[in-house]
Amino acid sequence: MIIATLGPEGSYSEKAAKQWNKSGEIHYYDDIQDTVEALLHDEVDFSVVPVENSLEGSITLTLDLLMEHHLTIVGEMVIQISHCLLAKGKRSDIKVIMSHPQALSQCRKFIKKNFRNAQLRPVLSTSLAAKLASGSKDIAAIASVESAQKYQMEILEKNIQDINENFTRFIVIGKDTPHATGNDKTSIIIYLQKNRPGALFEILEEFANKNIDLTKIESRPTKKLLGDYLFHMDLKGHIEDRQIKETLEKIKDKVGMLKILGSYPAAI
Amino acid sequence: MIIATLGPEGSYSEKAAKQWNKSGEIHYYDDIQDTVEALLHDEVDFSVVPVENSLEGSITLTLDLLMEHHLTIVGEMVIQISHCLLAKGKRSDIKVIMSHPQALSQCRKFIKKNFRNAQLRPVLSTSLAAKLASGSKDIAAIASVESAQKYQMEILEKNIQDINENFTRFIVIGKDTPHATGNDKTSIIIYLQKNRPGALFEILEEFANKNIDLTKIESRPTKKLLGDYLFHMDLKGHIEDRQIKETLEKIKDKVGMLKILGSYPAAI
Repeated sequence: MIIATLGPEGSYSEKAAKQWNKSGEIHYYDDIQDTVEALLHDEVDFSVVPVENSLEGSITLTLDLLMEHHLTIVGEMVIQISHCLLAKGKRSDIKVIMSHPQALSQCRKFIKKNFRNAQLRPVLSTSLAAKLASGSKDIAAIASVESAQKYQMEILEKNIQDINENFTRFIVIGKDTPHATGNDKTSIIIYLQKNRPGALFEILEEFANKNIDLTKIESRPTKKLLGDYLFHMDLKGHIEDRQIKETLEKIKDKVGMLKILGSYPAAI
Repeated sequence: MIIATLGPEGSYSEKAAKQWNKSGEIHYYDDIQDTVEALLHDEVDFSVVPVENSLEGSITLTLDLLMEHHLTIVGEMVIQISHCLLAKGKRSDIKVIMSHPQALSQCRKFIKKNFRNAQLRPVLSTSLAAKLASGSKDIAAIASVESAQKYQMEILEKNIQDINENFTRFIVIGKDTPHATGNDKTSIIIYLQKNRPGALFEILEEFANKNIDLTKIESRPTKKLLGDYLFHMDLKGHIEDRQIKETLEKIKDKVGMLKILGSYPAAI
């Protein structure tokens, strides 16, 4: 089994991929789009990509790719993110701080307090930042403990994110929906027929009537008009459950578009 | 009247600020946070910041600052975004493309097609990219026509965003809620009491019952727990309208938190 994930080695995505399947062979890609396209081009069996962080919110590119392509979510994993400040040199040598833009955002207060004059350089992944920074004394990286080990860098400080509790949810994208386990989630995208008062309410009413728990609702632009949205929703339950199946069938007639992204075991 | 906006000169934010008030004196700031803090520190009378783009969705930092601070939205403007490729040299000289991360995202397909090997360098604003690129032949910038004029750069190509219709909505933040004009919007943030099935539905039901139009709903993480959300909502109407006022009072008792961000004239 081959799993595509964000590289290079030492990324949080790799950690998620290994947690999902220990024995899979991991192929590394440069960005989220390439990681997803690897699956679309049949280079891999599964792709693992981040979808949501507890501080920064949704990874909107992942949501948009789920809309644009025919993809099936087959699993999810939650990984605790503990950012470290890594360097080859001393703290006083640091002139540049490199990391993924989300990691830079997550450590905004730490950087403003301790490195007000450092230049921030966003790169495609935290592990790439570590790899690049390992070649220079005046560049620090914000990345994982695993990246420090992989690129033989010193950990100058641990847990530097603004809020201690920092989790990222990853999804596994594959081809076939796994059977119900009794603790599942179903992800869908809805486009409402019209932007009229109460249209979204009528959809949520269907779920509420059947006591179906909506664990997430997130709007994304349709990219056609300002103020025109798609809604990404996560529901508790599996598409094989009669309740979910019947409710989605009912909703289908009320909306402009219903896309079912898949049902999969919920992360604990 | 002093208005804070994203700089340097030639930014889309400046265009929005001038559209809102032609005669205001504009002060330029490096990033969204500094632009908002200028108002909090009484350096300016108003701040103009982007809140939503029709291709990329919400500017989440703006939403989070609206939650974190005591701020009042007093107006909104919609600006058409037309990104241009600007350079001092020839097309074949370009090795680096510089712009704001959202502008780079919005031109993703154009860049992949035409400059697959160019290095992408995200900076704090499109006008800053133009300013920096104007000093080098091998750096191009993605920015506005106004930036090209301001920094005397050639426009190598116009309208390079992935989808032609590209609009950004800006909000004006100030101190006093303007009176109703008959065509207004009210922005609120809600935190639901509990994450139980149907909690969001009950809130939307109140709006639907009164025929209040919800023009936007967007979830943001509470930054405490993964899967714990705040909801940013825009409603048609003014807080002075009896319908809106009474409905919000009713909702207040049903939610964990209701924050009213302001009522202001809706952009056409």
